[in-house]
Amino acid sequence: MISGCSLSLSYFGSTSTASVFYLYSSSSSSLKLNPTRRFLFQNPKNHLRKLEPLRSGRSLVMESHKTLFDVDKFDDEFVQKLVYDALVWSSLHGLVVGDKAYQKSGNVPGVGMMHAPIALLPTAFPEVYWNQACDVTPIFNELIDRVSLDGKFLQDSLSRTKKADIFTSRLLDIHSKMLERNKKEDIRLGLHRFDYMLDEETNSLLQIEMNTIACSFPGHSRLVSELHQTLLRSYGDQLGIDSERVPKNASTRQFADALAKAWFEYNNPRAVVMVIVQPEERNMYDQHWLSSTLREKHNIVAIRKTLAEVEKEGSVQKDGTLIVGGQAVAIVYFRSGYTPNDHPSESEWNARMLIEESSAVKCPTIAYHLTGSKKIQQELAKPGVLERFLDNKEDIAKLRKCFAGLWSLDDQEIVKKAIEKPGLFVMKPQREGGGNNIYGDDVRENLLRLQREGEDGTAAYILMQRIFPKVSNTYMMREGAYHKNQAISELGVYGAYLRNKDKIIVNEQSGYLMRTKISSSDEGGVAAGFGVLDSIYLN
Amino acid sequence: MISGCSLSLSYFGSTSTASVFYLYSSSSSSLKLNPTRRFLFQNPKNHLRKLEPLRSGRSLVMESHKTLFDVDKFDDEFVQKLVYDALVWSSLHGLVVGDKAYQKSGNVPGVGMMHAPIALLPTAFPEVYWNQACDVTPIFNELIDRVSLDGKFLQDSLSRTKKADIFTSRLLDIHSKMLERNKKEDIRLGLHRFDYMLDEETNSLLQIEMNTIACSFPGHSRLVSELHQTLLRSYGDQLGIDSERVPKNASTRQFADALAKAWFEYNNPRAVVMVIVQPEERNMYDQHWLSSTLREKHNIVAIRKTLAEVEKEGSVQKDGTLIVGGQAVAIVYFRSGYTPNDHPSESEWNARMLIEESSAVKCPTIAYHLTGSKKIQQELAKPGVLERFLDNKEDIAKLRKCFAGLWSLDDQEIVKKAIEKPGLFVMKPQREGGGNNIYGDDVRENLLRLQREGEDGTAAYILMQRIFPKVSNTYMMREGAYHKNQAISELGVYGAYLRNKDKIIVNEQSGYLMRTKISSSDEGGVAAGFGVLDSIYLN
Repeated sequence: MISGCSLSLSYFGSTSTASVFYLYSSSSSSLKLNPTRRFLFQNPKNHLRKLEPLRSGRSLVMESHKTLFDVDKFDDEFVQKLVYDALVWSSLHGLVVGDKAYQKSGNVPGVGMMHAPIALLPTAFPEVYWNQACDVTPIFNELIDRVSLDGKFLQDSLSRTKKADIFTSRLLDIHSKMLERNKKEDIRLGLHRFDYMLDEETNSLLQIEMNTIACSFPGHSRLVSELHQTLLRSYGDQLGIDSERVPKNASTRQFADALAKAWFEYNNPRAVVMVIVQPEERNMYDQHWLSSTLREKHNIVAIRKTLAEVEKEGSVQKDGTLIVGGQAVAIVYFRSGYTPNDHPSESEWNARMLIEESSAVKCPTIAYHLTGSKKIQQELAKPGVLERFLDNKEDIAKLRKCFAGLWSLDDQEIVKKAIEKPGLFVMKPQREGGGNNIYGDDVRENLLRLQREGEDGTAAYILMQRIFPKVSNTYMMREGAYHKNQAISELGVYGAYLRNKDKIIVNEQSGYLMRTKISSSDEGGVAAGFGVLDSIYLN
Repeated sequence: MISGCSLSLSYFGSTSTASVFYLYSSSSSSLKLNPTRRFLFQNPKNHLRKLEPLRSGRSLVMESHKTLFDVDKFDDEFVQKLVYDALVWSSLHGLVVGDKAYQKSGNVPGVGMMHAPIALLPTAFPEVYWNQACDVTPIFNELIDRVSLDGKFLQDSLSRTKKADIFTSRLLDIHSKMLERNKKEDIRLGLHRFDYMLDEETNSLLQIEMNTIACSFPGHSRLVSELHQTLLRSYGDQLGIDSERVPKNASTRQFADALAKAWFEYNNPRAVVMVIVQPEERNMYDQHWLSSTLREKHNIVAIRKTLAEVEKEGSVQKDGTLIVGGQAVAIVYFRSGYTPNDHPSESEWNARMLIEESSAVKCPTIAYHLTGSKKIQQELAKPGVLERFLDNKEDIAKLRKCFAGLWSLDDQEIVKKAIEKPGLFVMKPQREGGGNNIYGDDVRENLLRLQREGEDGTAAYILMQRIFPKVSNTYMMREGAYHKNQAISELGVYGAYLRNKDKIIVNEQSGYLMRTKISSSDEGGVAAGFGVLDSIYLN
């Protein structure tokens, strides 16, 4: 993660395993505002910035980002009606996941289903930031493509991560081999999701993550928007709001269309789309929405294989065609393969290699996968780096505006500030994987310890700006029950990109997904929480 | 049941409880043809008919009713692909039921769901019989309405049943009170399902039952037709058949439209539709399809109440308005109330009375409910009875053509034949409730016993023509698994009827549902089996 957002978002990041949906907690403790929050980062455009106190509280834009529904005023009976309707709608419209309490629900479709975890109502989101997030999506799509072509940049940037992280190291090994062979990918398909939070202190939209592999919920995100539109139409009078303010969300169709166009470019009418899946997948229905749209709208067959199955059943023909289980594969669409857990043995790595060697369109290539790593985001945030990949200064400025503050521990001034005001920073280890972030007073203690111990240790960490997202009361629904919680939200904007050599075929924003999580105050910061699927209401 | 069909169809008749879905049996023993079957009823139009041997085997029409898919030729891999796609489609499109293994699945929507039990592929059905079943639907709709208006006919016909059956007795009591008060129902709404089987021996479409209350699956029947259409589109090449031969099925929309038109006639814009439900209902999603179509297409709110809740929360205002939980009720739509089990205490009977006393549109009225009883069907099959209610001789002939043979035990000639050829008859007790039918050699033994014991006992039974439906190999899917079984099918044709005084507003065939069950040979006849939802393929 590039930002200092103090939430572990891996539950809903590129992770599509649904098992984490079920860690229900009824705690809804409030976020205690830390007085140090009044000092904040004024200009997020500037990578090296001063900490200054806020001039006049919240800006006008942020004022308009008010709580949309005063849920405290809802009576129980009204909420229960909404909840019941939401549960019914989800069940009838395939907004479902596998129930981990039902053993077969990760393998056999149609059994052990329950509604997906959802927010009862959409979360308010200022239109200006929504437009901003949509506007930058094609630029980020293009950036990822350009970075992916710079093999040296990827290898150099990740050279230190390689030593610390065996997973990245294995990806880099395959990447190196492809570079050695001068392997070209003419048809490049990116199905991305760019995640943002609104930071209340800087009044800015800050990017949390660029997901370039296995972006989850392009199927369900459309549904949750439609659910909220339907509820607002039914109860608009009582709620006093307009269902048209929930943006239309064609994520499923747009991703399916991009896959279909890539299939068409590959130009083998007998070839299939191969979805790389985990051996157990309780979020399978989100994936099935894409496959079934591909089949019903485009008459393209999608098959599902684990990486282990690809190794067992797969081969690459002399002309580069990937054959798996006797079927030619036009596109390898990863919905697995993004964590070390997805590569428990050499079989899976052999499969990654086999896929990369083939002529199949990879969504993503190893280069795209690496481009989405946190370390590369951090590199891209350095001064002058975006300019290596993009020409248009306006575009560069737009991207940079979304970058959160990010510093090396070589920056003595920032280290001093962080020791003074540790609540404004997050200390993150360079290596991949969440859960090891350091917050609050621990930041001070660790920085002082590193100063005592000398230079070597400092290279293992970076300092990041801490994001303070708005906290709102939200009804969250899980396992048929609902709870009112103080929650924070994260906007994911999908981006589809397809090119064949010099021809850009698709480069568009492709729907969105809001994810909303319980915020709880620890001394160290906002704790990792589970998330529910959500949509936005423009205000 | 009017016919001698030897299947207990109560599992899928008007019963909407899903618990019986889960009684899986893997037995698929074949139906052994009894040599006596070569003797059959030549002319089902004639109530009193002779038994004659078949002239020349099957007719041409019946020959065309061949097995559609030679499922024995399917390889496992192909079947598994179809099964997987069917499971996914069902999950994404709301073709789901509650799983009885999950405790809350009968009360809380969105939890403990699984796909509905379904046939993998549609069942062949000759177009000529399909047209016949559609053609008679408006006539049966009209017949039910006219019979319902003849209070004396209902009371007289059911006078003996009243003594034997406390449930019918209670319904008749309410009916009597309404007759005494001269209560008129100007707006009459019927949402019926007429069930048929094709009898191989007589080459005829014979009616099993007229359901006038709580007809199940107007929601799911549309879905199973769409599922089969989708599978045939996807695998049409391999199957060699045309998805267009599965008739379009707008059951949900047509029933919702009829409810909406009745709501409009009632003319109270603040009134709701009240669905009478069982306290636990695992088939709730079929019901929710209707309610949500009402809401989303017609902006009409449906509430769900048990009969006990109606008694507790309900009252009738001076002007006749039924108020339940503070809401005026325009239409009472029963999806419960059709068995003694739905009336465990006086509360439920009080609720029935309250509803009947009110001005709300009842779907059905007590009179409609009684008109659908087996005893009334039997009365209607008597010579000259249809003529009391219908004028058009052609219409009368069409209905009579669907009636199976039905005799009193006073008919010595038939009793003699039944003792000679017991396999051609079913002996049925007059009282309501399945499971007490007598088949095979037991028919002979019981008839001989009654002859020894004298006249009194014979009045308790009737003899019915036994139906011999075609047996085909069918893949049935339950709980994520599939099994090939020898199966028999029953076609249900939905009919919607709405009138306000002299104005007939709706009288139409409104979609259909095929139900397919395992056939197993007992010495006594085809045993009661569970059913799966199915559609038809016209041939």
